[in-house]
Amino acid sequence: MYYHDKRLQYPVVVEKPDPAFARMLQQAIGGVEGEIRVCMQYFFQAWGNRAPTTKYRDMLLHTATEEIGHIEMLATAVALNLDKAPASLQEEGAADGIVGAVMGGERPRHVIEGLIHKNLLSSGLAAMPVDSDGVPFDMSHIYASGNAAADMYANVAAESTGRVLAVRLFNAAHDEGMRKMLRFMIARDTMHQNQWLAAIEDMGAAAALPIPNSFPQEQEDQTHNYDYFVTSIDGTYPEGRWTQGPSVDGKGDFTAFRNEPMGEEPVLGPARPDSGAQVEQIGKP
Amino acid sequence: MYYHDKRLQYPVVVEKPDPAFARMLQQAIGGVEGEIRVCMQYFFQAWGNRAPTTKYRDMLLHTATEEIGHIEMLATAVALNLDKAPASLQEEGAADGIVGAVMGGERPRHVIEGLIHKNLLSSGLAAMPVDSDGVPFDMSHIYASGNAAADMYANVAAESTGRVLAVRLFNAAHDEGMRKMLRFMIARDTMHQNQWLAAIEDMGAAAALPIPNSFPQEQEDQTHNYDYFVTSIDGTYPEGRWTQGPSVDGKGDFTAFRNEPMGEEPVLGPARPDSGAQVEQIGKP
Amino acid sequence: MYYHDKRLQYPVVVEKPDPAFARMLQQAIGGVEGEIRVCMQYFFQAWGNRAPTTKYRDMLLHTATEEIGHIEMLATAVALNLDKAPASLQEEGAADGIVGAVMGGERPRHVIEGLIHKNLLSSGLAAMPVDSDGVPFDMSHIYASGNAAADMYANVAAESTGRVLAVRLFNAAHDEGMRKMLRFMIARDTMHQNQWLAAIEDMGAAAALPIPNSFPQEQEDQTHNYDYFVTSIDGTYPEGRWTQGPSVDGKGDFTAFRNEPMGEEPVLGPARPDSGAQVEQIGKP
Amino acid sequence: MYYHDKRLQYPVVVEKPDPAFARMLQQAIGGVEGEIRVCMQYFFQAWGNRAPTTKYRDMLLHTATEEIGHIEMLATAVALNLDKAPASLQEEGAADGIVGAVMGGERPRHVIEGLIHKNLLSSGLAAMPVDSDGVPFDMSHIYASGNAAADMYANVAAESTGRVLAVRLFNAAHDEGMRKMLRFMIARDTMHQNQWLAAIEDMGAAAALPIPNSFPQEQEDQTHNYDYFVTSIDGTYPEGRWTQGPSVDGKGDFTAFRNEPMGEEPVLGPARPDSGAQVEQIGKP
Amino acid sequence: MYYHDKRLQYPVVVEKPDPAFARMLQQAIGGVEGEIRVCMQYFFQAWGNRAPTTKYRDMLLHTATEEIGHIEMLATAVALNLDKAPASLQEEGAADGIVGAVMGGERPRHVIEGLIHKNLLSSGLAAMPVDSDGVPFDMSHIYASGNAAADMYANVAAESTGRVLAVRLFNAAHDEGMRKMLRFMIARDTMHQNQWLAAIEDMGAAAALPIPNSFPQEQEDQTHNYDYFVTSIDGTYPEGRWTQGPSVDGKGDFTAFRNEPMGEEPVLGPARPDSGAQVEQIGKP
Amino acid sequence: MYYHDKRLQYPVVVEKPDPAFARMLQQAIGGVEGEIRVCMQYFFQAWGNRAPTTKYRDMLLHTATEEIGHIEMLATAVALNLDKAPASLQEEGAADGIVGAVMGGERPRHVIEGLIHKNLLSSGLAAMPVDSDGVPFDMSHIYASGNAAADMYANVAAESTGRVLAVRLFNAAHDEGMRKMLRFMIARDTMHQNQWLAAIEDMGAAAALPIPNSFPQEQEDQTHNYDYFVTSIDGTYPEGRWTQGPSVDGKGDFTAFRNEPMGEEPVLGPARPDSGAQVEQIGKP
Repeated sequence: MYYHDKRLQYPVVVEKPDPAFARMLQQAIGGVEGEIRVCMQYFFQAWGNRAPTTKYRDMLLHTATEEIGHIEMLATAVALNLDKAPASLQEEGAADGIVGAVMGGERPRHVIEGLIHKNLLSSGLAAMPVDSDGVPFDMSHIYASGNAAADMYANVAAESTGRVLAVRLFNAAHDEGMRKMLRFMIARDTMHQNQWLAAIEDMGAAAALPIPNSFPQEQEDQTHNYDYFVTSIDGTYPEGRWTQGPSVDGKGDFTAFRNEPMGEEPVLGPARPDSGAQVEQIGKP
Repeated sequence: MYYHDKRLQYPVVVEKPDPAFARMLQQAIGGVEGEIRVCMQYFFQAWGNRAPTTKYRDMLLHTATEEIGHIEMLATAVALNLDKAPASLQEEGAADGIVGAVMGGERPRHVIEGLIHKNLLSSGLAAMPVDSDGVPFDMSHIYASGNAAADMYANVAAESTGRVLAVRLFNAAHDEGMRKMLRFMIARDTMHQNQWLAAIEDMGAAAALPIPNSFPQEQEDQTHNYDYFVTSIDGTYPEGRWTQGPSVDGKGDFTAFRNEPMGEEPVLGPARPDSGAQVEQIGKP
Repeated sequence: MYYHDKRLQYPVVVEKPDPAFARMLQQAIGGVEGEIRVCMQYFFQAWGNRAPTTKYRDMLLHTATEEIGHIEMLATAVALNLDKAPASLQEEGAADGIVGAVMGGERPRHVIEGLIHKNLLSSGLAAMPVDSDGVPFDMSHIYASGNAAADMYANVAAESTGRVLAVRLFNAAHDEGMRKMLRFMIARDTMHQNQWLAAIEDMGAAAALPIPNSFPQEQEDQTHNYDYFVTSIDGTYPEGRWTQGPSVDGKGDFTAFRNEPMGEEPVLGPARPDSGAQVEQIGKP
Repeated sequence: MYYHDKRLQYPVVVEKPDPAFARMLQQAIGGVEGEIRVCMQYFFQAWGNRAPTTKYRDMLLHTATEEIGHIEMLATAVALNLDKAPASLQEEGAADGIVGAVMGGERPRHVIEGLIHKNLLSSGLAAMPVDSDGVPFDMSHIYASGNAAADMYANVAAESTGRVLAVRLFNAAHDEGMRKMLRFMIARDTMHQNQWLAAIEDMGAAAALPIPNSFPQEQEDQTHNYDYFVTSIDGTYPEGRWTQGPSVDGKGDFTAFRNEPMGEEPVLGPARPDSGAQVEQIGKP
Repeated sequence: MYYHDKRLQYPVVVEKPDPAFARMLQQAIGGVEGEIRVCMQYFFQAWGNRAPTTKYRDMLLHTATEEIGHIEMLATAVALNLDKAPASLQEEGAADGIVGAVMGGERPRHVIEGLIHKNLLSSGLAAMPVDSDGVPFDMSHIYASGNAAADMYANVAAESTGRVLAVRLFNAAHDEGMRKMLRFMIARDTMHQNQWLAAIEDMGAAAALPIPNSFPQEQEDQTHNYDYFVTSIDGTYPEGRWTQGPSVDGKGDFTAFRNEPMGEEPVLGPARPDSGAQVEQIGKP
Repeated sequence: MYYHDKRLQYPVVVEKPDPAFARMLQQAIGGVEGEIRVCMQYFFQAWGNRAPTTKYRDMLLHTATEEIGHIEMLATAVALNLDKAPASLQEEGAADGIVGAVMGGERPRHVIEGLIHKNLLSSGLAAMPVDSDGVPFDMSHIYASGNAAADMYANVAAESTGRVLAVRLFNAAHDEGMRKMLRFMIARDTMHQNQWLAAIEDMGAAAALPIPNSFPQEQEDQTHNYDYFVTSIDGTYPEGRWTQGPSVDGKGDFTAFRNEPMGEEPVLGPARPDSGAQVEQIGKP
C-alpha cells in the first residue's frame, strides 16, 4: 500500500508562464514515452512478478512509486505554465501582458487557444492525461509480459525514449525553472536506463538470450535462427555486425541469407454457403 | 518501393482446424507484441532515419519487408484454422464432426462463436488486424523516436515479447503444422533479438549510453544521476547490481538514496474569474 | 430537431432468451458495420452538406432518423436475450432451466459469463455501444467527407457490410422472433444499398468519376492514371476488366504496367545537433 | 511525493483459483468503473486544484493514494486466480484437477483459454490494465474539469458505478477469500460515495448549483432554464418531480414545455471551388 | 421510433465566421463533456431500463431526443464558422478579408490550417464527431450501468461538466449569434442538472445510498465503511464534513482512520515451466 | 512474401520545407482516408479471400504491394518538409531564415511547434502513423468483410475519400515538388477508383446486388425492401431517383412510405434481485 507527502520530490518553479510549453510538457505526462507509462508499467510488472525470489518485484516497486511523483511534478509544471493563458475574452490584457510578450506577436490569443484546446476547455487550465496533441494515454502501452528479461528491455526502451523526450523539452524550454526541473528528470532517466540494464546483467546478459531462455533452442528451426534475411530485389545488403561473426547471445553465427519462398501460394478455397459471401465466391456445389 | 511473390516465406499447413487456436493466433497479428507492430515499426524507423550513413536505414528495410511476409503467414494460418468453424445454424454437423471433436463437449457451437465473435461476424472467418480479444491494433505502438539507439532497444523489447508470445502459442498448439510454422517464427525472433543487439554493439554499447548520448551529461543534475531512489516507508530496499559498483554506462557509480521531498507543497492559488470554476474556488477579489 | 414515439419501428420479440446471441447482436449495434455507425454517418453528412440544393441533405435526414430506431430495436433485442443470463451465484437455477437448455452442457454459467462479460458487469444485462468483442464504437468511423459522391460510396459500403452482418446473424439465430426482426432489417439494408446507388446515378454515375470530379484531370499525372501497376517479382498478373478496355469512368483505357522505381533512394542526411539523436547520427560539424 | 509498504492494505486470499473469475476482476482494474480510473481521477483533480484553500486538494490526495493500493490488491487477486490456468498443452492435468472441477465440464481447456486470452498470451497469467473483455483502459475517462463541484459529482458517479460493479463481482464470486476482499472494497466505496457527497454539502449543495455557480444566471436564456422539454410526437410525458414544483437548486420552477422548432432550416449554401467537393455541389459561378 | 423536423430547435446565426472558434465548438460535439455523449447516454439508459414502472425510461427518452437537436445545432454552428476558412492557396484573399481581420496578423493562413486540420482535410469544412483536438469520440463514455441512481449521478456529472464547457465557450466567443446560442444551451444544462437531481430526490436521496441500495449493508465490511483513510506519511489530514458527524446517507458516522497494512506482502511464487518466463523465474524443480 | 527496392516509386522533392504542410501530409499517412488504411485493407482482403478462383486475391496483392510504396513516399515527404523545423531554442535562426519566410510572421517558433508537436517531440522530425491532428491510426478501419462485393465498395469509398484528400493537399501545397508528387498520387487514386469499380462490373454490377447476393431475397421482409421511409413530422420528403421507378438492382420498385410504429412500446420489466440495481427497480417479490 501507499503513502504520500504533500511536498514535491523536486522543486517546480515557473518564472514566465508559457501556455505553448505547457502543451509540450503534456507529452511527458500522457505521451507513450511519458511518466504515466513508466509508472504503471513498473507497477504492473511488480504486481505480476513470479519468481523464486521477490528481488525484482521489490526493486520495481521502489521505482514505480518514485514515478508517481514525476507525474505530479509535471502536472504541477503544466498548471503553472497555463497560469496566464487566456480563459475568456475579457482577459485579453493578461495575455498581452505576459504571454503576448513571450509569443512576440500581436493578439496571439487565438493561437494560444489553438495550442491548448483541451487544457483550456476540458480541464480549466490544468494538466490532463493526454499527450502534446491532446490524445489520451492508452493503457495498452503498459508492457508487463510475465518474462522478466523482456520486461527489462521494454523498460530500457521506455527510459531511452523518455530521456530523448526530456532532452527535446529541455532544448525547447525558455524558463530557467523548467530547465532545472528537466535537468533533474534527465538525470533520473540516466539512472533508470542504467538500472534496468544492470538488472539484465544480473540475469546474465547473453545467458538471458534469446528471450525467453526457458524455451529449448533445439525446438526452434535451427536452419535460420541466426540468418539476416535479405529482401532486396537485387540481393544487395548492408554488411555489419549482424551479417557475420558470433551472434550476441554466443549461441550461433550470423550469416546473410537471400530470402526466397519456402512455402506455396496459399489457396483458401471457396467460401461456404451461408457465410455471407457472394454467390460467385461460393462456387458450384 | 516493393514487390511480392505469391508464395509464402515458409509453409503454413493446418491439419486439424481449430477456431479457438485461430483466435489465439490473432495476438501475433494484431497484439502489441505482434507482427504488424514490428513490420510498421521497422518501416517508420527506416523511412525517418537521419544519419551520415544509410547503413541502419538499409538494414531496417530488409527486415521490415520480411515482416510483411510474417503477417501474411499468420493471416493464412488464422483463415485455415477457421475453416471448420460454424458459420450458420445449419452447419452444426460440421462443427460436431471436426471442431466438436477437438472441443470434446456436446454442442460446443455457442462456445466457439463466443471465442471468435468478430472473425465470424465481421470478417467471414478470416484474419483481422486485431488481438486475441478482438481489440484493433493501435498504431501508437509504432516506436520510431528519431534516436537510433532508443529505437534499437524498442526493437529488442518488441522481439523479446514477440518471442515470448510465439513460445506461448507453440506451447498451446495441438497441430503439427502450426508447431512447425511457430518453430520457424521463434527462430526468426531469435535472429531479430540478436540483430538489434548487434546494432547496439555496433553503436558502441556503453558508449551509446545514456541515450541520447548527444546530450552533454554535465548539463544533467549530477547529484542523482546514478542513485537508486528508495521509496519504502521503512527505508529497506533490495540490494543488487543497481545499488553499488560502477554504472552500466561506466560513467558513474550506483548508490542507494532514501528519497525525501526536495520540493515544496505546490499551491496553484485561486481560480480566475470566467474560468468556469465554482465561486468558492475563485476567492475574494 | 427531433421527436420520438415510444413504440418500436418493428416488433422485437424473443421467445427463448439466449445470452450468447445477445453478444453477437452487439456487433450490429457497436460494430463498424453497425447501426450507430450508419445513423451518425448519415446525420453528419446531412448536417455538413453544402450544395446549391438541399435535396441530398433532406434525403439523408429521413434515413438517419430511421436508423435511431434501428439502434433502439437492437438494444431492446439484446436486453431481452440477456433476460435469463445468470446475474449471481444464487441464480444458477435460472441458468440451468433456460439458458442451460439452449447451451446443452452441464453448468454453463462460467461460459455464459465469459461470453457476456461487460454486458453483465458494466451494464446490468443491457445493450452497450460496443461490438461483439466488447470493443467500444469509435466515432472516427463516421465518414462525412464533404464530397457527396464519396460519401454515397461510403454509405453503399456501410450498408453492404451491414447487410452481410445481418445475414450472418440471421444464419446464427435460433429464435423465431429474432429471425423475424432480422428479415426486416435485411430488407431495410436492401433498400439503403439501392438508395445510395440511386443517388450516385442521380449524380451521373460515370460523370461523377473520378471523385472529386471538380479537380481538372489535366492536372493529374496522365501517364499512369489508368494503369494497373504490376508488383509481382516475375511480372505476372491477373488479367481482367481492370487491365484492358475503356475505364469505368469512360475517360481512359486500362493498361497493365510493370512497376519500377521512377524515384531515387531517399537520403535524409544527418540529424541536427540538439534534436535528441545519437552522436553518430549527427555527423561531423 | 510517494512511499510504499510492501504489504497489502487488506488481505487477498484465494483458496480455489478460478481463471474465469480472474477475467471478471479485470473489469474492476481496467474497466471504466474500475480502480485505475478513480485513482488517476483523484490525482489529476488534486494536482490541478485551484482554490484559495488547499482543503480539497489535500482531501483528494489521501484518497487517490489509497486507491493505488486497491489496484494492487486486485492485481494480486487476478494473478492468484490465474494460478492454475493452463499455460501449455502439457498442463492439461492441472486444469482438470482444479479448474476442471470448477468448470464441471470435460476438457474445458479451450474454453478457459478463450476467456483469458490476453492474460495468458500477453501477460503470462497476471493482471493487465484492461477490462473484462480485454479492452485497455483509456485515460480520457479521467474527469478533472477544473470545477470542484462538477468533479465531485463525477466522483460520486464513479464510486456509484464502482460499487455496483463490486456488488456484481461479489454476487458472482465462489471463493470465500475473494468475497472477503470484496466486502472490504464495497465498504470503501460506501465511504467514498459519502465522502464526495459530503464535499458537495460542504460547498453548499443547492448553492453550488447550477454548476458552475460562477456564471451569472441572468446571462443564460431564462425562458427555458427550468423547462422539461417534451419531444414525444403526441405530446404526452411522464409527470414527476421534474415537471412541477421548485427546482432542486431553488432558483426556478419546473414546467413541462412542448418542444417545437424555434430556429429555421439551416442552409449552408454551395461548396466552394477547390474544396474537394463534386461539381454539382459547387453550383454555378 | 423517431421523427424529424428540418428546422432547428433554436436559431444558429454566425455573423463573423471564425475557424478557430469552430474548432473550440468541436469539444461540445465530440468531447467527453459534449452532446453526443449525453444524447447516447440517455438513449442507452432508456433502452436498457429495467423497473416495475417505465417512468424513468420515458423521462430519459424525451431528453435523449432533445439532445440530437443539440448536436445538430452545434454541427451547424461549426460549419458556419468554417465558412471563410481557406480551402486552397488561391483563397488567400478570403482569409485575409475576414478571418485575417479576426486573427489580426499577417498571413495567418497556416495558423488557421493548423487549428482546423481535420475539419479542412477530412470533412471539407464541416463538423466531425471529434473533440477540439481532433480526437474522435469513444463510445465507452456512455455510462448506462443498469442501476438507475448511479446513472442519474453520471448524468448530473455529464451536465455539470457540460455546462462548465458551455460557459467556457461563451467566455471565449466573439460573435453575438454564437453567444445567443450558448445562452440557450447553458440554460438547458441548468435544467438538466436539476432534472437528474430531481430524479435522485424522487428515488429518496439518502435512501438511495449507498448505491446500489439493494445490497444488504450488513454484508459489507462494517469496520471501515465510514472511515476517511489517511495516507499521509505524517498522519496529518484535512478535517471537514467527511471526517466527523453523521454520514450523508445517515447510516453511519464519519471517522478518520490512519491507514496501515492489514494484509501481508503478496508472493506469487515461481513461474511455471512452459509459461514463457525466464529460467531464473521458474526455479528448481 | 515481399521484396524491396531502395528507390522510390516516384520522385519526392521538396524545395522549400514547410513544417505546417508536413503536418497536413500526415493525414494522407495515418488518416482514415490515408495510405496505411488502403495498404492494409487490400492485404487483409487478399489474405482472407475465399473463392473458387484466386483472381481477386491476386489482383489485390499487386495493389496492396504498390501502396506500401505510397506510405514510403509520404513518409519521405513529411521528413523533408520538417527539415527546417526548429528543434531547439538555439535554432531560432534556421526558423527565421526559411520557415519564418514562409510563415511571414515574427518569431513563429511557438506556432510551428504547436502545429507539429508529436513529430517534433516523439519522432524527431519524421513521419508517424498518425493523422494531421496527431491521432494514431486505428486498424479497425481495415474493412475486409469476407464478401468480395462489399469489400470492393469499401475500396471505392476509400479511394474516393483518398483522392478528395489528395486534391485538398494539392490545393494547399506551395511547393512545386510536392505538387508534382501529389499529381501522381491523384492519378493513382483515379486508377484505383476505376479498378475496384471494374471488379464490381466483373461481378455483374446489378447482379451482385443486394449484397450479399447469396441470401435468398424471399427470406427478407418483402413488404419494405424497396421503400424510402419518410420520417419527417409533416410527411414531406424529397422526391428523387430513390422514391420511384425500378430499383438499381432491378429487383423491385422504389416507393415512399410514411414511417409509423409497427411495434409496441418495449417493456423490460423489473430488474432481478442481485443484479446490482436499486431496490426500486427490483419491485415486489
